[in-house]
Amino acid sequence: MVYSGPRLLLEKGIDMEKKRIVVALGGNALGKNLPEQMIAVKNTVKAIADLIEAGHEVVISHGNGPQVGMIQEAMTLLTRSNPEKYVPCPLSVCTAMSQGYIGYDLQNFLREELYNRGIEQDVTSCLTQVEVDPEDPAFANPTKPIGAFLTKEEADQLVRERDYTVVEDAGRGYRRVVASPKPKRIVELSTIKALVDTGHVVVAAGGGGIPVFRTEGFHLKGAPAVVDKDFASELLAEDLDADYLIILTAVEKVAIHFNQPDQQWLDRLTPEEARKYMAEDQFAKGSMLPKVEAAVKFAESKPGRTALITLLEKARDGIEGKTGTRIEQN
Amino acid sequence: MVYSGPRLLLEKGIDMEKKRIVVALGGNALGKNLPEQMIAVKNTVKAIADLIEAGHEVVISHGNGPQVGMIQEAMTLLTRSNPEKYVPCPLSVCTAMSQGYIGYDLQNFLREELYNRGIEQDVTSCLTQVEVDPEDPAFANPTKPIGAFLTKEEADQLVRERDYTVVEDAGRGYRRVVASPKPKRIVELSTIKALVDTGHVVVAAGGGGIPVFRTEGFHLKGAPAVVDKDFASELLAEDLDADYLIILTAVEKVAIHFNQPDQQWLDRLTPEEARKYMAEDQFAKGSMLPKVEAAVKFAESKPGRTALITLLEKARDGIEGKTGTRIEQN
Repeated sequence: MVYSGPRLLLEKGIDMEKKRIVVALGGNALGKNLPEQMIAVKNTVKAIADLIEAGHEVVISHGNGPQVGMIQEAMTLLTRSNPEKYVPCPLSVCTAMSQGYIGYDLQNFLREELYNRGIEQDVTSCLTQVEVDPEDPAFANPTKPIGAFLTKEEADQLVRERDYTVVEDAGRGYRRVVASPKPKRIVELSTIKALVDTGHVVVAAGGGGIPVFRTEGFHLKGAPAVVDKDFASELLAEDLDADYLIILTAVEKVAIHFNQPDQQWLDRLTPEEARKYMAEDQFAKGSMLPKVEAAVKFAESKPGRTALITLLEKARDGIEGKTGTRIEQN
Repeated sequence: MVYSGPRLLLEKGIDMEKKRIVVALGGNALGKNLPEQMIAVKNTVKAIADLIEAGHEVVISHGNGPQVGMIQEAMTLLTRSNPEKYVPCPLSVCTAMSQGYIGYDLQNFLREELYNRGIEQDVTSCLTQVEVDPEDPAFANPTKPIGAFLTKEEADQLVRERDYTVVEDAGRGYRRVVASPKPKRIVELSTIKALVDTGHVVVAAGGGGIPVFRTEGFHLKGAPAVVDKDFASELLAEDLDADYLIILTAVEKVAIHFNQPDQQWLDRLTPEEARKYMAEDQFAKGSMLPKVEAAVKFAESKPGRTALITLLEKARDGIEGKTGTRIEQN
């Protein structure tokens, strides 16, 4: 495979405009357990390296559904094995662990991929918290299942002692559900900015960030919640004044009438068109809908900003206008 | 309590020289489980805030013995519960998780403590890897016990399938032991430097860093090892060209003839004196000895560098020459 890096393009006299890009990786880019993650991440970093090689500034955010689920399951087993020593581990702490777990692999494989392409590049993971509002309506209606299945006794105890919300999953036991509030503020924003400005590729806001409430003074308290990674990535992209927000997913383009005979792939969407389709329920809840919502918010936040929804391996083609669905103002 | 910050000292015309300080926190500064950590860290950050308030540049490193033990135990239980889905989690990955787990609390409480003193200060945790040498003699003789007790069957299986070294702990079962090699290189050094240079307080090299081997090209592979946090902190302090390395521990000063009738506390030690005492076996292995060794290495690395061994709450007094044991060249 032949790559043409920024220096090469410059030498060839090709006009190459450097863009600041926030790339949001979905769970499929990371794998469901450790061996899967090793394979998935190795592939994922190729697409990101393509963008860096093309001369762009890249910040990476990622989901953590399977990973934080695994960690929470492990911590639940630990508490169960020795309840006197180990209290249940808050979800926020599990998210912090998952940022270490994923960031470690992601930064190493990306650095290696770049090195193999002749690019020596610092890549770092920034432990990121995201402030959420305790008054966010999502807290009145927790819907996101988290962690291991529980027995009725365990579920009752957690409801009684720790004020958890638990739902019965027919036949498979009980599961905790948590709220998915909107992100209000990226706590480590100035750190992420400093890293980007000093030439780092940064992995940030992993798993949507560690959700925290800000209480009296400056106290940050872990929130029993999961922030959607697409919304956290969108806020990060706005705050970093990014040119592009790329939301990577399992399809090359967004479609209306998805999986129906009149299915139609979309190359470009204005925020107005997207809103119309959302009103028609064209996009699946918890799947394509939050991606389109985040994309619309970014495209509307400032003229010239473009959101792109596409496949992982099409990221660079997407930036070059060859594929994917672009959401942008007229 | 009355604090005199750098601005106040300046207003009073007191000459206050800004020093770059690496502070190595011991396990006792962090607590053994989550509720203990919340209490311990809240106290720990006061001592660190004292140094920052006095105008110094501070980088924090920390141990992770109980924390990585807890995470490894949880991950072992997870594998045990579902061996088909979850392979045993490498120690390096557990260390990465522990950096997220500890860094999250440490950076928040420190930021809050500083905020409450009127100082708005970015504090961040840097996921840090430390390269070790596969030829390090420590790998021939692994001694550091790690993680949960195992049954004979589990131990045998791990020896057979994963090449673990396992020792029997009389009556309590079997435990994995790993090597404790010397750190060769801080992989994320340029990132830590960039953060310090842009005014951040950085938490780095947690748990002695995630130990990695560098193999062909730039591939970093998790090493089955634990790097001593005192040696990792020392290397970090050298590489950051720090003025001070403070190793915080459970005693105010280093002693010779410790716990004997002729016990003698030491205010100051030259590297030569320290070597003489080490040759006399004055310092306990796995406890005071690595601290003194690390201190000597730092003091000898460049004229003007001082290592200080003291109690957590005496850190600032130590820098001001009021207490602790200073290890420095003549």
